[in-house]
Amino acid sequence: MITQEQIQDHNYHLVAEHEFKWGHLAESLARQGHHPDAVLKKVADFQVAIPSWALGTGGTRFGRFPIGGEPRNLEEKIEDVGLIHALNRSSNSISLHIPWDIPADVQAIQDLLMQHGLAIDSVNSNTFQDQKDQAHSYKFGSLCHTEAAVRKQAVDHNIEVAQYGQALGDECKTLTVWLADGSNFPGQHHFRRAYQRTLDSLTAIYEALPADWTLLVEYKPYEPNFYSMVIPDWGTSYSLCQQIGERAQVLVDLGHHLPNTNIEQIVGRLMHFGRLGGFHFNGSMYGDDDLTTGSIKPYQLFLIFCELVQGMDDPSVLNPALAWMIDASHNTKDPIEDLLQSVQAIKTAYAKALLVDTEALFAAQERNDVQQAQAILEDAFQTDVRALVAESRRQSSGALQPIELYRKLALRDSRIESRGRYAVATGL
Amino acid sequence: MITQEQIQDHNYHLVAEHEFKWGHLAESLARQGHHPDAVLKKVADFQVAIPSWALGTGGTRFGRFPIGGEPRNLEEKIEDVGLIHALNRSSNSISLHIPWDIPADVQAIQDLLMQHGLAIDSVNSNTFQDQKDQAHSYKFGSLCHTEAAVRKQAVDHNIEVAQYGQALGDECKTLTVWLADGSNFPGQHHFRRAYQRTLDSLTAIYEALPADWTLLVEYKPYEPNFYSMVIPDWGTSYSLCQQIGERAQVLVDLGHHLPNTNIEQIVGRLMHFGRLGGFHFNGSMYGDDDLTTGSIKPYQLFLIFCELVQGMDDPSVLNPALAWMIDASHNTKDPIEDLLQSVQAIKTAYAKALLVDTEALFAAQERNDVQQAQAILEDAFQTDVRALVAESRRQSSGALQPIELYRKLALRDSRIESRGRYAVATGL
Amino acid sequence: MITQEQIQDHNYHLVAEHEFKWGHLAESLARQGHHPDAVLKKVADFQVAIPSWALGTGGTRFGRFPIGGEPRNLEEKIEDVGLIHALNRSSNSISLHIPWDIPADVQAIQDLLMQHGLAIDSVNSNTFQDQKDQAHSYKFGSLCHTEAAVRKQAVDHNIEVAQYGQALGDECKTLTVWLADGSNFPGQHHFRRAYQRTLDSLTAIYEALPADWTLLVEYKPYEPNFYSMVIPDWGTSYSLCQQIGERAQVLVDLGHHLPNTNIEQIVGRLMHFGRLGGFHFNGSMYGDDDLTTGSIKPYQLFLIFCELVQGMDDPSVLNPALAWMIDASHNTKDPIEDLLQSVQAIKTAYAKALLVDTEALFAAQERNDVQQAQAILEDAFQTDVRALVAESRRQSSGALQPIELYRKLALRDSRIESRGRYAVATGL
Amino acid sequence: MITQEQIQDHNYHLVAEHEFKWGHLAESLARQGHHPDAVLKKVADFQVAIPSWALGTGGTRFGRFPIGGEPRNLEEKIEDVGLIHALNRSSNSISLHIPWDIPADVQAIQDLLMQHGLAIDSVNSNTFQDQKDQAHSYKFGSLCHTEAAVRKQAVDHNIEVAQYGQALGDECKTLTVWLADGSNFPGQHHFRRAYQRTLDSLTAIYEALPADWTLLVEYKPYEPNFYSMVIPDWGTSYSLCQQIGERAQVLVDLGHHLPNTNIEQIVGRLMHFGRLGGFHFNGSMYGDDDLTTGSIKPYQLFLIFCELVQGMDDPSVLNPALAWMIDASHNTKDPIEDLLQSVQAIKTAYAKALLVDTEALFAAQERNDVQQAQAILEDAFQTDVRALVAESRRQSSGALQPIELYRKLALRDSRIESRGRYAVATGL
Repeated sequence: MITQEQIQDHNYHLVAEHEFKWGHLAESLARQGHHPDAVLKKVADFQVAIPSWALGTGGTRFGRFPIGGEPRNLEEKIEDVGLIHALNRSSNSISLHIPWDIPADVQAIQDLLMQHGLAIDSVNSNTFQDQKDQAHSYKFGSLCHTEAAVRKQAVDHNIEVAQYGQALGDECKTLTVWLADGSNFPGQHHFRRAYQRTLDSLTAIYEALPADWTLLVEYKPYEPNFYSMVIPDWGTSYSLCQQIGERAQVLVDLGHHLPNTNIEQIVGRLMHFGRLGGFHFNGSMYGDDDLTTGSIKPYQLFLIFCELVQGMDDPSVLNPALAWMIDASHNTKDPIEDLLQSVQAIKTAYAKALLVDTEALFAAQERNDVQQAQAILEDAFQTDVRALVAESRRQSSGALQPIELYRKLALRDSRIESRGRYAVATGL
Repeated sequence: MITQEQIQDHNYHLVAEHEFKWGHLAESLARQGHHPDAVLKKVADFQVAIPSWALGTGGTRFGRFPIGGEPRNLEEKIEDVGLIHALNRSSNSISLHIPWDIPADVQAIQDLLMQHGLAIDSVNSNTFQDQKDQAHSYKFGSLCHTEAAVRKQAVDHNIEVAQYGQALGDECKTLTVWLADGSNFPGQHHFRRAYQRTLDSLTAIYEALPADWTLLVEYKPYEPNFYSMVIPDWGTSYSLCQQIGERAQVLVDLGHHLPNTNIEQIVGRLMHFGRLGGFHFNGSMYGDDDLTTGSIKPYQLFLIFCELVQGMDDPSVLNPALAWMIDASHNTKDPIEDLLQSVQAIKTAYAKALLVDTEALFAAQERNDVQQAQAILEDAFQTDVRALVAESRRQSSGALQPIELYRKLALRDSRIESRGRYAVATGL
Repeated sequence: MITQEQIQDHNYHLVAEHEFKWGHLAESLARQGHHPDAVLKKVADFQVAIPSWALGTGGTRFGRFPIGGEPRNLEEKIEDVGLIHALNRSSNSISLHIPWDIPADVQAIQDLLMQHGLAIDSVNSNTFQDQKDQAHSYKFGSLCHTEAAVRKQAVDHNIEVAQYGQALGDECKTLTVWLADGSNFPGQHHFRRAYQRTLDSLTAIYEALPADWTLLVEYKPYEPNFYSMVIPDWGTSYSLCQQIGERAQVLVDLGHHLPNTNIEQIVGRLMHFGRLGGFHFNGSMYGDDDLTTGSIKPYQLFLIFCELVQGMDDPSVLNPALAWMIDASHNTKDPIEDLLQSVQAIKTAYAKALLVDTEALFAAQERNDVQQAQAILEDAFQTDVRALVAESRRQSSGALQPIELYRKLALRDSRIESRGRYAVATGL
Repeated sequence: MITQEQIQDHNYHLVAEHEFKWGHLAESLARQGHHPDAVLKKVADFQVAIPSWALGTGGTRFGRFPIGGEPRNLEEKIEDVGLIHALNRSSNSISLHIPWDIPADVQAIQDLLMQHGLAIDSVNSNTFQDQKDQAHSYKFGSLCHTEAAVRKQAVDHNIEVAQYGQALGDECKTLTVWLADGSNFPGQHHFRRAYQRTLDSLTAIYEALPADWTLLVEYKPYEPNFYSMVIPDWGTSYSLCQQIGERAQVLVDLGHHLPNTNIEQIVGRLMHFGRLGGFHFNGSMYGDDDLTTGSIKPYQLFLIFCELVQGMDDPSVLNPALAWMIDASHNTKDPIEDLLQSVQAIKTAYAKALLVDTEALFAAQERNDVQQAQAILEDAFQTDVRALVAESRRQSSGALQPIELYRKLALRDSRIESRGRYAVATGL
């Protein structure tokens, strides 16, 4: 799709300007007592999984405006993630969605993954849609359904999803469960029974998972048309995980909160409990907008990474390693460009969080020096780390300006040519 | 579909119990100084239009769970509204959506409407989706688009929509414009230019309308995936209408407001300006949920009707007659049952608003007797007017318990039989 | 303050009209299969505590507009609650606030309480203000403070508050802790440490409580000027209670939620966990508005009571008895009138919830009959239970129209005369 | 309070490090085609007024935690603003609040202002509190009050406030009206009459103003305890201004919006109408939090400045010059430090907005290149302009690090010594 030669050629023309910036930044950081190389390495090592469903144009309840050249099957999705990873060296894994991504030929998929330096990182089940020839409908819920047969079908589906993940490689040890189970009107749900049924179903899934797998339980306050969700908030997810078992963890999707929620505090809370399992990154202006990560509230994203960095660096925090994933939808932008922007924003926030002078911050906190505590965070946030993130890509053989190169090579056009103008990704 | 005999037979078995309730209520109201017959007449006369697109199962961005027997074309939509109207005698008109409801045979449609005692009340344009063979895409907007050709296409479509309305009968004198025009990310829109283009386009549409037509301009704060809407709030709608012309009016959709908005105050404001053109009734818990009217915040619905009744009764208010319409979506309920519930809730709120002792209320307001003002409204709201609304139906030859009768006659089953289990309404 | 004779005289003039209404309602209920007397008894038995701080005019950050005749001390607060209870026979207890209500003469207070048929029901601590001569300031928090000495002072204060409660009578077995602990800016708080310190402090308080006392932990998402609260949501309260001990319970204040929160679901959730400790009733339009209960969203209040009634009736729910309390502020209304309105609204919601046909509801839920489930709740809500609530008061020797009688006797005027126009309640 | 020598000495020790940063930034900007000196000049010229009421510790409805050394009168407030201006050379004017700041000796105040290089920029009226010996109470509103006498008192007060402003100097040509007029419960207000009374009162004030004065009409969606505000949104402010007259303009306070409001769009809208009169800068997490500007959503602040810069640079926009003012409250931080932080954040956002490549942005907008439009804004925002803002201060004889110098000179301590630990600013 793209050759290392093309990337090096691209970098060659930009490197002088880049070094002007990076040289100054590295010296500035060193003067402030940072170790630029250590920061560079952490930023380079940080990898964010790409969901298989984010590579096509997203839809709304009204319609879809396709961009063309969208991947038509799992192989082409892997190709697109491979391209993203070649450009930014930051997205070495894919999150699959079953049944949208059931592999026809497992060995061929594994070979293709290896060829692109990718792995399957996690699998996601789908009980929010009815599939053709499905015995029971999820119209009135899945894991929470009033009928045992529907719950069993949904439980079995989740177990099957994990089996697909196992088949695809050893790196895949995570099953993510997001439920659209809820009610549309007062009275429809018996809240306590719906919760208990969901707990029982999740427990059945958990018990069928391999012993080294993690079950991620996602929460979301509402879907359009809903009056209640069975798992609306972190408190519900957390209480479920407590009862399910040790490897059940809460998944935080940035767009799944009521207006004005302090998400960074929830992140700290869950790490304190050792129950933060992973992230779905995206951006949000009003609700579950699935916009480009960091496009609306970049400071909030930075504050979230401050919590994450502090938690991961604190030996008293017993939280397991986290699953990082983008979960966005692309309605008016090229999905590949949008994903490159999202990863850039995530690494920017991460790099800035690594620059926080935590020693000074903690001291300011202890003496209640509010102004200083705020200023220490803002100092890190104000730092322009674009050259650092670019340098981390360059050192990993990625492109200095991934989107510029992607456009210059007209890779969307070649996709439209080979895949067609009205190609539709499986699952959309 | 349903015979007057079936309705009378149904009423016959319920009338004794009904008269026990209605007799008591009528006497109670009379004791309080009300004229039960006058209230009955107002409630009976109140008619709410049914939108053609609300008769099938609604969809989400994920999927649709069809109920079966959904109308497959305009004729079957008219049949379903005819059934609703036969049952409740409160929905004598339909609001059409073009291009979903383009009539193949105008005369046949007019005959069918007459047969059911219905009329076309208004027409709605659609520039939020691309239709097959459309020259230009609305991916980046319609009336606000940066390219003149796209704007012209959208303007022409609106004018054509009005022509369909004119063809279908004299009662149709309203064009409703709802735009999904907006931006997904900061920077995408030049806010001032997008506004000005929209104003120019709306003005062009307005000038092409017949002289006795009204242009309703709807507002909405956001769509999922959006960062800004061109017409996000009543203030924008109102400013547009001021510049477009006298017969341009603001349309209020109950679900189109930011959290915690005081909608009843907006209603009062717009009536004060003489610029309230009409209503889209629905219910909302979190956003634009398009739930059954009154199912979530019935007191708010009542307060809105208090503003409406007071405004309509106040000779100093120069607001023209309003267009009343339901705009809901039905994902888990039978659309016909849901619409019957919505109309019932609207009439309930209206009837209670008619029972407010406005003279006492205004006096309490003038002397700043906060407790009394509140209590006067609550007294009206606490009154159980179900028997009154039922009686107004009965006197109009409708059913005392429309949903009960609809279920008893198994009219959904007969629809599934004749139309099929996977019938899809045009436009969905 | 008011004599039984005055009440009977008042009732005498209203009883004919009342019996016209109550007679019809009782018959209607009986026809539907209800036992009016059983409902009457439950409604009559339901008692809601009045907080001592709600008897004066509330304040804002800008100012206070006193109504005059406000109670100047604990004795006069008891008198006012005594009056409320005499009128509505529904408020037989008081919730105290320390240090605002430290009794000078315990025996005299007990005698006064007995004279009015009242008891102290719970005590509330105050670490959100600095008191004169206090060693350490709560400017930067209390139970979460970075300094051990401040935390100790706050813990000791809470223990002392419980001791005042114990001294005042055996009925008082509840300590309510509401914290204004939080941060104003990003960086100010180390979220995990602030949580842990709060947990340790609460545990210390809990361990010092008598073995039959309950510790209620209140949550609140924000205060004006805040960026984070240490206990912002039910999930945090719940996690604290889990770790503190069995008699630590979550207190729900209706105004303490982010926009669009489904509170009734939280209520069900906490009952399912056996961790719902009590309620602070009030009304809310935008935030923590402390308005009259039921004045803004009466249907939500009813739905909450549906959860409560169902939970209390369900033998599988192991939740202990709940503490019911009003927590409102009165800026433009007479506090006594406002409290009478609030209790009326609470009993109305409770009575309607008692009328829900739960058997039919549960059946509709099990068969996913969404329309019916919704309609069953709405049927109960539409019922006009004013005569039932009035009858329950009458049978308990209360007034048929408490506010009417309070106004007729000019009891505010007599208070202004005896207490003065600018009387200020302790603590305001 | 502070000498130029102290500032120069402070700068002397920091200048080498500063020049390392500024030199690189200036070269970077020049390479991108910017004119660093032109940007520097614009940033230096940008002045933000300090409100007289922001110099003391703010309060909440619960309490106040004073910092000590707060200004006790207008003279000391001027001294504090003079200090801020000496440090940052960016706050050369004060906004007064009447009756809190009625000058005893006008000439002495004018001399003091001149000595500090300051001017009075605008005056604010206060009808949200009752003053001692006031004939009528504002408990139930002021300009909207049901009684003509109360409205007249409020109108007269506003006219008098403007007269104080005129007396204090020619620079003061702005009267800002913020109303706490609203209702606490449904029914309390007759919405249409309350609006009309407010319009009539504002018109009376406007007509009494000197011909070159501007009347700024502020909006706010709610106050705690309110159900409705008479001027809740920009649409209401705008409609009032349209009817009042040409020099009536809308004032935008950043904290006065419902959750999720797109404020930058409102700014663009009002500039398009030529009706944006001025700004109250502050930061907000949940509501009207009056936090440090830019402390919560710095990207939103930048986007707002993008609208402002584009509007001010566009010759087709006929909006008059804007009034810039901070309106914040300081509960846990030193007010002087907080104001210095706010001005820094405002200038940072302004400087970044000046760096937007508007030509490229407009081109991307016209061709609907969503990704590029977003990226162009983010490029400007990512730029670290701290050295530029510092250089603009240095060239104006201000301090490179104002807060550092303020702390080093222990100017709070000296204030506590001279003014006392429990000094209270007039009006708090």
